[in-house]
Amino acid sequence: MNDQPTPDMLARIALAQVVEPGNPKIGMQVTQRGACDVVSEMLAHLSNTRLPDLAAAEREVELAATIGVRLVFPDTLDWPTQLDDLGPSRPLLLWVRGGGQLRLGVVRSVSVVGARAASEYGLTLASRLSSDLARAGWSVVSGGAFGVDAAAHRGVVAVRDRGEGPEPGLTVAVLACGVDFGYPKANASLFEEIVKRGLLVSEVPLGTQPRRLRFLVRNRLIAALTRGTVVVEAAYRSGALGTLRYAEKLGRVVMGLPGPVDSYLSGGVHRELRAGALLVTSAAEIIEAVGELGADLAPEPTTPNRPRDQLGSLSRVVLDLFPAREAIAQVDLDRAAGLIPGALAVVLAELEAASMIRPNGAGWELTARARA
Amino acid sequence: MNDQPTPDMLARIALAQVVEPGNPKIGMQVTQRGACDVVSEMLAHLSNTRLPDLAAAEREVELAATIGVRLVFPDTLDWPTQLDDLGPSRPLLLWVRGGGQLRLGVVRSVSVVGARAASEYGLTLASRLSSDLARAGWSVVSGGAFGVDAAAHRGVVAVRDRGEGPEPGLTVAVLACGVDFGYPKANASLFEEIVKRGLLVSEVPLGTQPRRLRFLVRNRLIAALTRGTVVVEAAYRSGALGTLRYAEKLGRVVMGLPGPVDSYLSGGVHRELRAGALLVTSAAEIIEAVGELGADLAPEPTTPNRPRDQLGSLSRVVLDLFPAREAIAQVDLDRAAGLIPGALAVVLAELEAASMIRPNGAGWELTARARA
Repeated sequence: MNDQPTPDMLARIALAQVVEPGNPKIGMQVTQRGACDVVSEMLAHLSNTRLPDLAAAEREVELAATIGVRLVFPDTLDWPTQLDDLGPSRPLLLWVRGGGQLRLGVVRSVSVVGARAASEYGLTLASRLSSDLARAGWSVVSGGAFGVDAAAHRGVVAVRDRGEGPEPGLTVAVLACGVDFGYPKANASLFEEIVKRGLLVSEVPLGTQPRRLRFLVRNRLIAALTRGTVVVEAAYRSGALGTLRYAEKLGRVVMGLPGPVDSYLSGGVHRELRAGALLVTSAAEIIEAVGELGADLAPEPTTPNRPRDQLGSLSRVVLDLFPAREAIAQVDLDRAAGLIPGALAVVLAELEAASMIRPNGAGWELTARARA
Repeated sequence: MNDQPTPDMLARIALAQVVEPGNPKIGMQVTQRGACDVVSEMLAHLSNTRLPDLAAAEREVELAATIGVRLVFPDTLDWPTQLDDLGPSRPLLLWVRGGGQLRLGVVRSVSVVGARAASEYGLTLASRLSSDLARAGWSVVSGGAFGVDAAAHRGVVAVRDRGEGPEPGLTVAVLACGVDFGYPKANASLFEEIVKRGLLVSEVPLGTQPRRLRFLVRNRLIAALTRGTVVVEAAYRSGALGTLRYAEKLGRVVMGLPGPVDSYLSGGVHRELRAGALLVTSAAEIIEAVGELGADLAPEPTTPNRPRDQLGSLSRVVLDLFPAREAIAQVDLDRAAGLIPGALAVVLAELEAASMIRPNGAGWELTARARA
C-alpha cells in the first residue's frame, strides 16, 4: 500500500485489530458484503465486545509507514494469490517487513518446519536443505521459532550473504505476533537478518503478542504460501505437524525428512511418512516434487562406475560364476545354467577382450580389473 | 529325510551337485519329467559337462548323516511350502543344520537384511528389531554375512539364551555355501550359535564354496521363506536390495528402516522407501504389516496425557486464546472467533471446573495445571 488507504482497507485493518486471525465467519461476511459493511454492523450491534475503531486503523497505517512496514491487501499487486485458496479464512491483510517483493518472492517456495527443540541432526539438515533450495532459486518459508525454523532461515541467509546462485530464493518468516514484536526475543538479531535478506510477514497488527491459537492459525499461512511443506524433525505431538495438515487440506505437497528411528524427534515425521507423506532426503528431491513437471527432476543418485558396469548382462551373469581368488575350469563353466549352447564361448571372448578374465590352465580366472 | 533316500531324492542330490542353484530350466524339467529322467538324459547326451553321479549323491547322503545335516526335499513334511512360490527356480532340495523344525519355524518369519559394512546405527537396530521379533514369536531369516545379517542373528540368539517370550522365534541363516562350509570363517562361532538356537539352510551341497552368483540366487530363498523383507541399511548398490526385489516379485511385504539422510548407508533404503517400500520403525510395525489382519496391530505411539487432553475440543480452542503468563479480559475473550453466542460462558465454566482457568480481575487467567 503506497497511497492513502481506501475505506475498505481501513475497515480491514480495524477488523484485524479486534478479531482473532483466520476467523472464517468474519472472512465470509467480508467477502460477501465488504469490510466497511461488517464494521458498521459490528459498531451497531455488538456493544459488549471490543469494537472496531477506524481511527485506530488510521493510526496503524501511520505507525506502519513510520517503521517501514507495508500493509498488503488481497487483490492488490503484491498479494500472494495462493492465499486465496484459504477461502473464508484468507487473511484480512498482511503486515510485511523486508526488502523482497512478497508475491514474486513466494511463487516458487517451500516451507521447512519442525521442532523447536531440534537435535543437531535436525538443525544441520534444515539449514542444508534451505541453503540448497535458496541456491536453486527457491524461497523458504517458516515460522520464527527456535530450532528448525531458525536453522531454515539461517541456511538461506548464508547463501544470500555469499551471493550464491544466479537468483537465490528469499527467506520468509511468518510470525504469530506483530512483525515489530519479534517473538521470541532471543531471535531478534535473526529477524533483523531476515528483514535484510527476505521478509517478515504477519496477519496480526503491530504490537500484537503471540498466543497459542495464533501459532496454530498462523501455520495455515505457511502451508498456503508454499507449494509444499517439509517437516524436518517433529515429535509425535509437534505443532509443526499442524502445518502438514493444512498443506494436505490445501492440496500442497506434504513431505518429511527421515531420521534415526531411535530419535523421538523423528517419531512424528516417520508417522507422517507411514501415512503417505513423501520421503525426501535432499533439496533436489523437494524441488522435483513441488517444481514444474519435467523441468525440475532430481538427478539419480550416482555411484562410481565399475568396469563390470560396461559389460552386457549375459557377460555379467557369467562373470558372477567366477570364484574370487581361484581359477574356474572350463568344464565347470560349461554347466553355467540356462545359456544358449555356443553362447558361452562368445561371452568368454567378450570378457577376455574386456580384460576381465584371462586363461588359466584348463580354465579361466578373474583379472585384477574384474576384482576391482 | 530319515529313511533311505528314494531314487528321486538321489537324482535331485546328484543334480544339485553339478548344476548351479536356481536354474529354472532344470527346475522345469524336474517338475515335468522327474529328477531321475533328467539325470538319465544328462548322462546320455551332455558328455562334455560335469555329469551327475548317483554314487556321489549316495556319499553326500552318508556324509550329511555323519555330521548331523538333514536333507529336506520338496513335498515332504518339513518342506517350507512358501518356497513353491518360486516356481521352476524352487530349490531341488535343502541342506539343513540345527535344532528347529524348518517348515514350522518359518511359518511366521521376516527377513532382516542389509549392509555388510553397516554402521553402529544399523547394527544396533538390526539386533533390536530381531530381538523384538523373536520375543513376539516371529522367526528371523537372513544371510550369514558380517554386518546386518550377523547382528540380526545375534538379536534372536540373545532372546533365546535368556528364554524370553513364551515361544520365541528361531533365527535362520540361509547360506550361499554348504552348511558345513561356514563362510565367512570369522562368523564360525556365530554359525555354531545359530545351529543351537535356530537353523543353517542352504540349497548347495556340503563343501560348496560361495560365489557371487550364489549369493544373488540365495537371496530369492530369503525373500521366499518369509512374509516380508526389511532392509535395515543399504547403500545404493547394496546386494541386500536384491532380496527386496525378489520379495516384491513374490508378493511379499517390502519394508525399509529409515536412517539419517547424511548416511550413505541409508541411501539405498531411502530410495526404496521413495519407490513405495513401507517405512517401519519397530518390530511392532513390521508384525502389523506381515501379520494376520487385525490380530497383529501395532500399538499407537503414545505420549503422556496432559490435563488439556481431557477437555472437549471447544474448550481447548478457548484455552488456546489465553496468553501464557498474563490474564485475559472478558471483553477480549468475547471476540473469540466463531463461537455460538452464549457458548463461551458454558465453556469458561467447564474450564474453571476443570481447574484450568481462574478469575482474575475483569477476566481470567490460566492455572498452573493448564500451563503444565
